[in-house]
Amino acid sequence: MNVTVHGRSRHYRTVTFDVRGNAVLLIEQRLLPHEFRIVPARDFRQTARAIKDMIVRGAGAIGATAAYGLAQGARAFRGRDLAKFLSRVETVFQTLKAARPTAVDPVNAMNFVREAMRAGQTVEEQQALALAAAEEFANEDVQHCEAIGRHGAKLIRNGMNVLTHCNAGWLAFVDIGSATAPLYAAQAQGREFHVYCDETRPRSQGATLTAWELAQQEVSHQVIADNAAGHLMQRGKIDLVIVGSDRTLGRTGEVANKIGTYTKAVLAARHGIPFYVAIPLSSIDWKLKSGFDIPIEERDESEVLGAWGMVEGASGGVRASRPAGRMYMRVANPGSGALNPGFDVTPAELITGIITPAGILKPQDLWARRRDLGG
Amino acid sequence: MNVTVHGRSRHYRTVTFDVRGNAVLLIEQRLLPHEFRIVPARDFRQTARAIKDMIVRGAGAIGATAAYGLAQGARAFRGRDLAKFLSRVETVFQTLKAARPTAVDPVNAMNFVREAMRAGQTVEEQQALALAAAEEFANEDVQHCEAIGRHGAKLIRNGMNVLTHCNAGWLAFVDIGSATAPLYAAQAQGREFHVYCDETRPRSQGATLTAWELAQQEVSHQVIADNAAGHLMQRGKIDLVIVGSDRTLGRTGEVANKIGTYTKAVLAARHGIPFYVAIPLSSIDWKLKSGFDIPIEERDESEVLGAWGMVEGASGGVRASRPAGRMYMRVANPGSGALNPGFDVTPAELITGIITPAGILKPQDLWARRRDLGG
Repeated sequence: MNVTVHGRSRHYRTVTFDVRGNAVLLIEQRLLPHEFRIVPARDFRQTARAIKDMIVRGAGAIGATAAYGLAQGARAFRGRDLAKFLSRVETVFQTLKAARPTAVDPVNAMNFVREAMRAGQTVEEQQALALAAAEEFANEDVQHCEAIGRHGAKLIRNGMNVLTHCNAGWLAFVDIGSATAPLYAAQAQGREFHVYCDETRPRSQGATLTAWELAQQEVSHQVIADNAAGHLMQRGKIDLVIVGSDRTLGRTGEVANKIGTYTKAVLAARHGIPFYVAIPLSSIDWKLKSGFDIPIEERDESEVLGAWGMVEGASGGVRASRPAGRMYMRVANPGSGALNPGFDVTPAELITGIITPAGILKPQDLWARRRDLGG
Repeated sequence: MNVTVHGRSRHYRTVTFDVRGNAVLLIEQRLLPHEFRIVPARDFRQTARAIKDMIVRGAGAIGATAAYGLAQGARAFRGRDLAKFLSRVETVFQTLKAARPTAVDPVNAMNFVREAMRAGQTVEEQQALALAAAEEFANEDVQHCEAIGRHGAKLIRNGMNVLTHCNAGWLAFVDIGSATAPLYAAQAQGREFHVYCDETRPRSQGATLTAWELAQQEVSHQVIADNAAGHLMQRGKIDLVIVGSDRTLGRTGEVANKIGTYTKAVLAARHGIPFYVAIPLSSIDWKLKSGFDIPIEERDESEVLGAWGMVEGASGGVRASRPAGRMYMRVANPGSGALNPGFDVTPAELITGIITPAGILKPQDLWARRRDLGG
């Protein structure tokens, strides 16, 4: 999507590849929303480190980063010995996998690249195939998000107020995003609407990342406290809710997503407001039989007991735009602890529809359509 | 309630009177939860200033402060001229009233004191009656909260998990509080339970004031993000919700309270969890016919776009305990704005019961019982 740097708006993907320099180029997401910077990962170890340190995060984005990282490692090999080359590729694969050991997307992405490489007879051929496959993987991620946008844009009519939760935006993918895709597609079609971004405590991804994305695309929006959505719905000020998904159960249509998603779904159901979940196909879990079996990560209590941000100077402006200026502040009573579940599970009965690259489906219909959905 | 200072636990009221020094003594609430300090207001102008600057806040607490302030101003008068004395009392009254021009509690409290003074024939008698009436007013506030605690404690059984929202605690009253009263009464009866404090964004009164109060009383508690309550209810981890009220409609049983209260009521209803509202009688509005007529204050967007807290040093401890150490941090994207409704309205159908000093009532029954409730 577009980012305005020094007054000029330009298109950026979250992750791209510099063929000449054999470098993976990443948006340094840890600096957002206070600073926009592209950083290069100059070898596969730096790429693994960027995934580990969360310079890049989000399922689609780390998948593409790992795909590029595998091609990068393969391309750095000098020589013609295929056995040595494949041994090196294995090292690269394991290094990138270890960067986020519980994430499934990097592994899927690298398997896709490695599969494509097999057609090559020489090191050189395999190197070229690796890069082509990584590019294909990234482009497919973009095409899937475009398809989500095409289907989801039909839900957005002129004058609507749309509620979002957390960030399932282009920063979490290679481009466009999942929950944000219908917004960007509707905007491209000239429709006018307003977005309320739940701030999404405790990590505030709505107030930071989603608000930054929407500001860069010049989408009309306001941040709200997570507490405010119910009141706004009661007063008729929200017409549609679109959220993302970390894991969608193909058998039941249940959706695990950022903590607070379930609350918004309950509120939307009470007020008869359509509640949609936009998902990439890779988020569908075809095995699990119940949402209650999804392990809910208990995150560190410091997230709830404080906040990250920038201290503003007496002038009212932001004093420093360096990452050093962003700091942690304790908000809560120093003597108190916190409980911090990171995700919740929304049952299918509260979900109006699932926006997939293959169309909008009832959550209960995923299983019957599993052939079309890669299941 | 009790506060531990230098390792010793002692009982404090939010507001008391130093008869000898003719000073109103207040807990400096703006320093909490990082520092506990009692500050004296040495004349009625300082007392008015303390109300205006929110050293003291909360309906019951500012009512008692104004009552003491009127007595303080009356007692500072030197001479025997009753007409001059009454003129001075009028000045004091108007000065204290102007400190929080939209608040009804200080005026009600001062009318109570002025009414009592009328029985005095001399300046000296009226001065004595003023102080006695102010003490009576403060004691009645405490007795009402004790009565709320007596009735509400019956709802709390051993092993329960109780959810609270915002701060309707002893800091908002002279002592004990409204929503916290059942907790403190149940604790005094030896019952064991756990409290989840909604952090209550955007002003975080749950994470700061309620958590501080509960820590001082050694009530088992944890802060949670406002987003987490729905998940905890879904997993059976919340048994009871108790909140306060800024305004309760006597005709309909609707409750206006801190933003987010309505959301918790909707969630509680979905899960069959009892949802109670603890109120002082002074919060009941017998005139208004619909909750939709309650004006919802739109507060400054900076509250949503950032947070107030203390920056922690590298050692992990709080670097400074002076108020200067507490500062505002921008959390949200610098280019984005916010919408910040301060309150919401919960309909009677979602409220299991209203805990009043006169007993626990169905919200729909307030009107029929208005004689007993001061209506």
